[in-house]
Amino acid sequence: MADPRFFVSPASYSLAQIAGKIGAELHVSSDADFVVSDVAALDVANAEHLSFLDNKKYKDQFSVTKAGACIVHPDMIEFAPEGLRLLLSPTPYKAYALAAQVFYPEQRPEPFISSLASVHPSAKIGDGCFVGDFVTVGAGAELGSGVWVESHAAIGAGVILADGVRVGNHATISHAIVGRGSRIYPGVRIGQDGFGFAIDPSGFVKVPQLGRVVIGDMVEIGANSTIDRGASGDTVIGSGSWIDNLVQIGHNVKIGRGCILVSQVGIAGSTEIGDFVVLAGQVGVAGHLKIGSMAKVAAKSGVTKNIPAKEEWMGYPAMPMKKYLRQSVYLSKAVERKKEGTNS
Amino acid sequence: MADPRFFVSPASYSLAQIAGKIGAELHVSSDADFVVSDVAALDVANAEHLSFLDNKKYKDQFSVTKAGACIVHPDMIEFAPEGLRLLLSPTPYKAYALAAQVFYPEQRPEPFISSLASVHPSAKIGDGCFVGDFVTVGAGAELGSGVWVESHAAIGAGVILADGVRVGNHATISHAIVGRGSRIYPGVRIGQDGFGFAIDPSGFVKVPQLGRVVIGDMVEIGANSTIDRGASGDTVIGSGSWIDNLVQIGHNVKIGRGCILVSQVGIAGSTEIGDFVVLAGQVGVAGHLKIGSMAKVAAKSGVTKNIPAKEEWMGYPAMPMKKYLRQSVYLSKAVERKKEGTNS
Amino acid sequence: MADPRFFVSPASYSLAQIAGKIGAELHVSSDADFVVSDVAALDVANAEHLSFLDNKKYKDQFSVTKAGACIVHPDMIEFAPEGLRLLLSPTPYKAYALAAQVFYPEQRPEPFISSLASVHPSAKIGDGCFVGDFVTVGAGAELGSGVWVESHAAIGAGVILADGVRVGNHATISHAIVGRGSRIYPGVRIGQDGFGFAIDPSGFVKVPQLGRVVIGDMVEIGANSTIDRGASGDTVIGSGSWIDNLVQIGHNVKIGRGCILVSQVGIAGSTEIGDFVVLAGQVGVAGHLKIGSMAKVAAKSGVTKNIPAKEEWMGYPAMPMKKYLRQSVYLSKAVERKKEGTNS
Repeated sequence: MADPRFFVSPASYSLAQIAGKIGAELHVSSDADFVVSDVAALDVANAEHLSFLDNKKYKDQFSVTKAGACIVHPDMIEFAPEGLRLLLSPTPYKAYALAAQVFYPEQRPEPFISSLASVHPSAKIGDGCFVGDFVTVGAGAELGSGVWVESHAAIGAGVILADGVRVGNHATISHAIVGRGSRIYPGVRIGQDGFGFAIDPSGFVKVPQLGRVVIGDMVEIGANSTIDRGASGDTVIGSGSWIDNLVQIGHNVKIGRGCILVSQVGIAGSTEIGDFVVLAGQVGVAGHLKIGSMAKVAAKSGVTKNIPAKEEWMGYPAMPMKKYLRQSVYLSKAVERKKEGTNS
Repeated sequence: MADPRFFVSPASYSLAQIAGKIGAELHVSSDADFVVSDVAALDVANAEHLSFLDNKKYKDQFSVTKAGACIVHPDMIEFAPEGLRLLLSPTPYKAYALAAQVFYPEQRPEPFISSLASVHPSAKIGDGCFVGDFVTVGAGAELGSGVWVESHAAIGAGVILADGVRVGNHATISHAIVGRGSRIYPGVRIGQDGFGFAIDPSGFVKVPQLGRVVIGDMVEIGANSTIDRGASGDTVIGSGSWIDNLVQIGHNVKIGRGCILVSQVGIAGSTEIGDFVVLAGQVGVAGHLKIGSMAKVAAKSGVTKNIPAKEEWMGYPAMPMKKYLRQSVYLSKAVERKKEGTNS
Repeated sequence: MADPRFFVSPASYSLAQIAGKIGAELHVSSDADFVVSDVAALDVANAEHLSFLDNKKYKDQFSVTKAGACIVHPDMIEFAPEGLRLLLSPTPYKAYALAAQVFYPEQRPEPFISSLASVHPSAKIGDGCFVGDFVTVGAGAELGSGVWVESHAAIGAGVILADGVRVGNHATISHAIVGRGSRIYPGVRIGQDGFGFAIDPSGFVKVPQLGRVVIGDMVEIGANSTIDRGASGDTVIGSGSWIDNLVQIGHNVKIGRGCILVSQVGIAGSTEIGDFVVLAGQVGVAGHLKIGSMAKVAAKSGVTKNIPAKEEWMGYPAMPMKKYLRQSVYLSKAVERKKEGTNS
């Protein structure tokens, strides 16, 4: 169902083939030889499409979908419309992701160095790289094999992009080392000076920012996000972490592996974040804090203290979620009582 | 009063001419033949200038302005300084906007395709287009007539820009269709992959993002804002909506017509926003919600539930504004009582 | 300790030389002829390095540091490990900043106008400028002496960049005058139309934005920040102010001298901010307000009223910090009492 203007037309597969590729189980009453030619959402899918149900909010769409087949959790079988072929998975969204990858494998461009790019003679460009129009690659920069740099990106002197890195249009990368397979989205700014100054009556005194940005493997950095380099030592983004759009990472922040930072999060300097931490949208974290591994912080919270591992926090100043919710309920009830004329 | 370094010197008009062009009424005691040569703010205007009063905060400036003439609401006549010529309008700001357009009509550049641009041979460029230096236009992209693409913009393969679209410097547009007369400001990112992944113990599984961004007519998208393309189906911005700077729109968000999204708003994936909705600055809206038409959300609020049409909400989690204000007042008074030594 | 891939290898200096250059006092028991070759953080420094202690959080690192010498406040002498040479300063962070500048003076590039830049014949380029690849400089723009414009920046028609200005990669500057020594980081957008429209049943009426952006001397504007030009009159950033990444400044905002605006702050149109004001991260300020000089606003606050000079405010809506903290404590205790079964 993807627009052929933008996506390459997919091949077709039988349900048995798909089930094998994505690790799902074909429901006993479903036809293993039934062929699907594409993926589509429940409400727009037709008989040729494979769809999926993950969020129970969309159960009603599921019960009337016209899709040819659908990936669902076994618990949802009873809500399926008659005749809908089912692929069963305990993790339907992951199974859908894998199915969509089958239909739409990433289309890397052919190796190419644009004659309109400006590549410094001392830069090293690996095998199979794509370097687009108006890209700049500075002195001593090193691109591994299969690196893909889209138009207008600026790769600064000495920067290392490991194998398979993809850099989006208009991204700026300086003073940085980027690990294998990581993807930098359009307009990202990596490696500029952090916000470092000493206050003095005669004006601010700039603190030279002498560190780097070190990004692990398979990291994603969303559009127009900004990651300042370390003041002394490095700003670090651990392998497998996903950072959304318009996120700010201050100098010397350390982020562990597998973290999720949703859009418009801001993290002040020198804060250390463990592994598999989730910071929801618009969260702010003050400087010089420690957020333990697997902690979760609710959207818009403002973190001013260390958070122990595995805890869920919320609010401003952020506090354990239970405490926050008790305060919210208390306040709501107290106002309600007052409104009703009972004693406050 | 605009700096001639940056703005083309205007022609002059009589008050009668201006009144006709902007739909205002000349006050009986004002001279219809009086000529004004420019617009200017109340506090800096001189005898050659037309000014305006819209926000009552500036009434004191109005009462001493040296402007030659002024657009005001009829209710404000009594505060006018002696001799000030008046153009009366029930909507002075709109009348001023039209007057400023008379003095400073938009200056579209002459048709031009820069020899420093990189335009794919299969792209279609309409009549009267301006394509600036270091612009890239991808394979199969289509620019309507009078499209204006400023330097360094990247127009991806297959993108459609309808008649009269203006794209600012360094903007990136891919996987998108942009309607007539819409304006994309510098540094905007449209059409990149949304933040889509399935969580798995072995690491996140990327969900291919197979949709588009579909933007209506006469839309404005402010500088450095980011709009991800749909995961499946489209991200949609309705005609006549205005989006300010540094706004984040997640994948599959649907925004209706005539909405106002102020700076640094963030909207998570799949949320649907009706027509004429106002989201003030730094509002965050969670995913998979519905915000009814004509709803208004106060600045910095965090929306976690559906909002019915026409309601005004505020706070975090956002609630109807009356409820929020009652809570604020209750808390303030309770603390005050405690401080004064009365029973809490 | 800076990575030589990115930073030029420093010279070495004796402690006496350093003390003289940074205005610190050598501790009596420390060897004036001891030579240090670099600066480094406490936890990674070795015997050749000069380090510093400013934040007491790092006292434990100080007491076991292997640095050859360290800048500290006199109060901290007692916590120094045996044999550590000490440079004493009442302002250790400032002293460190100056020391780091000694080791790493700013490396301005050699004068150069790239043949890949597009400079309008009517633009004036001063002595000693650097104009990088794919830069555009518009008609009538004026660059003072020693201006440094990095690759892909777009300098619009008529823009004035005073002596020593540095413009980062991919920055867009139009309708602006930038003072001496100011630094614009990558991806900044300066001078685009503000968010100005009059509301009308037939759709929004655009208000022509006829002002400029006027930036003082020694200002820093962080990556991907956006500063709209005035609607009528100017948007002004006072000399010596530092603005972090992803900050939004609306049209006609006036910011005084020596202000600090931390990342993701947003200021709505026509607000006036005095001198030496500090707005912490993610603060939002409504339009048409006045924030007095030396006021401080805590992170994430939402300012909806004028703030008198020198006051500290917090919360949403923002209020004096003491009031906010009393409310927080009251609420926390009230909930605690209720939980314990006592009367609410």
